[in-house]
Amino acid sequence: MRLATLRTPATTVAVRVDETVAVEIDGFADVGALLADPGWESLARSAEGASHNLDEIEDSDWEAVVPSPSKIVCVGLNYRNHILEMGRELPQYPTLFAKYPEALIGPYDPIVLPEYAAHAVDWEAELAIVIGSRARRLNEADATRAIAGYSVINDVTMRDFQYRTPEWFQGKTFEGSTPFGPVLVTADEYTLGSELSTTVDGEKVQSATTDDLVFGPAALVSYISHIVTLNPGDVIASGTPGGVGHAREPKRYLGDGAVLTTAIEGIGSITSIVTVED
Amino acid sequence: MRLATLRTPATTVAVRVDETVAVEIDGFADVGALLADPGWESLARSAEGASHNLDEIEDSDWEAVVPSPSKIVCVGLNYRNHILEMGRELPQYPTLFAKYPEALIGPYDPIVLPEYAAHAVDWEAELAIVIGSRARRLNEADATRAIAGYSVINDVTMRDFQYRTPEWFQGKTFEGSTPFGPVLVTADEYTLGSELSTTVDGEKVQSATTDDLVFGPAALVSYISHIVTLNPGDVIASGTPGGVGHAREPKRYLGDGAVLTTAIEGIGSITSIVTVED
Repeated sequence: MRLATLRTPATTVAVRVDETVAVEIDGFADVGALLADPGWESLARSAEGASHNLDEIEDSDWEAVVPSPSKIVCVGLNYRNHILEMGRELPQYPTLFAKYPEALIGPYDPIVLPEYAAHAVDWEAELAIVIGSRARRLNEADATRAIAGYSVINDVTMRDFQYRTPEWFQGKTFEGSTPFGPVLVTADEYTLGSELSTTVDGEKVQSATTDDLVFGPAALVSYISHIVTLNPGDVIASGTPGGVGHAREPKRYLGDGAVLTTAIEGIGSITSIVTVED
Repeated sequence: MRLATLRTPATTVAVRVDETVAVEIDGFADVGALLADPGWESLARSAEGASHNLDEIEDSDWEAVVPSPSKIVCVGLNYRNHILEMGRELPQYPTLFAKYPEALIGPYDPIVLPEYAAHAVDWEAELAIVIGSRARRLNEADATRAIAGYSVINDVTMRDFQYRTPEWFQGKTFEGSTPFGPVLVTADEYTLGSELSTTVDGEKVQSATTDDLVFGPAALVSYISHIVTLNPGDVIASGTPGGVGHAREPKRYLGDGAVLTTAIEGIGSITSIVTVED
């Protein structure tokens, strides 16, 4: 099953995305609100609300799949091949940092940035793990059951802000910088191992498979849940593979007008145009 | 004016703390909800709700002054004397990281930790800055006006988790580890320069004055507001001075039963007992 959040004239609504239509799940303003209901899965499967033809939905109608998670936990240094090719050892623990919900935008929204934040804008395609039930100090088996599903996120990063200080956070949580969506694919319908990629202006710049994670979804949920409780709708951005612009020679960043597409085979593809304000 | 959040049998309530009584501010469950009302200051000053004698309020009735801020932004490396005594240069930008609201506890609550998180528990007394109106890309003058007031927070840190990876976050956001309160003193009634201290089992281990910040409250609000919007009730933990246990020789940590008191002259004093679960 595929779930999404659509913008309506007055608010937003959670929908089930079927083959040709999106069906409203009445009573839930977004996928986050839906997941907060313990019966979300059967509610969503049986929903029979207003129906919208997919080919009539505008790109700008798609909201971030979970617009306001109570937590977005990001993971660094988590793709095996990339770590090994850099000559580093595989880490013993996941590297974690946070992003605030104000960073999120819809899957086809422009990334609108002020000039002062537009000097070193980089891409980081990631598999997003979305929590479906409260997770507190879970082992990996229970953690697996706490995962609602998966989505596509790009942890767009201001490298200049990231490296101003010892902590990456301020380069990671820039307002309106993180496209997220278009759908959540429930865990029963997605198997790790499909291609994760970033394409910039038509050129593929990142490509890996999602089974190359050092710490997979269950390990991440279990580990984080021993530090802080994860709630339904919370999001884990599970890390990015090699190919980011900052590691290139010469370095390559996203400028005004750059077209950034992030895709995970079996989940979907999201595209944002970078727009630098005067 | 002093504001606080008190626990009631069913929920919590925002109060104005006068000389001998706490007066309920009807209609607001906590100081965060109060600050979200643009008229919070006059509402609080004129409140005439149920009154509680301060000497009849139990320690366990005091909730974190803002129990669920939408953001807690923490600042590292921000006390001048400590940086200079370590032989480092003063930083050009504030070091920022995040903490989730699940970390917060009331000002007199025990810090209850599982055994696996209790091996390197350290103290970090800090001045908390609480936001009173939306702050987006503000200069320092406007940032000053966006500050509701100040409180006391201890950014209790699991040093082992902090240094497992390049990012400090996982040692900083441990559930139920961060005492916060007892009151918010409005900005008009607190001037930087009073003593900030930590006392462990009766021994003073940190002491500094709050005017020794490299980046003061207005500079922090202005800087952060250029990255992400700050909302009423959001909290900035502005950094800790020297004297933490991890920097001592030998290192010193908080064990089961340790009594941790954090105080800022002119604001208040909070005390937690560390309690390690089997």
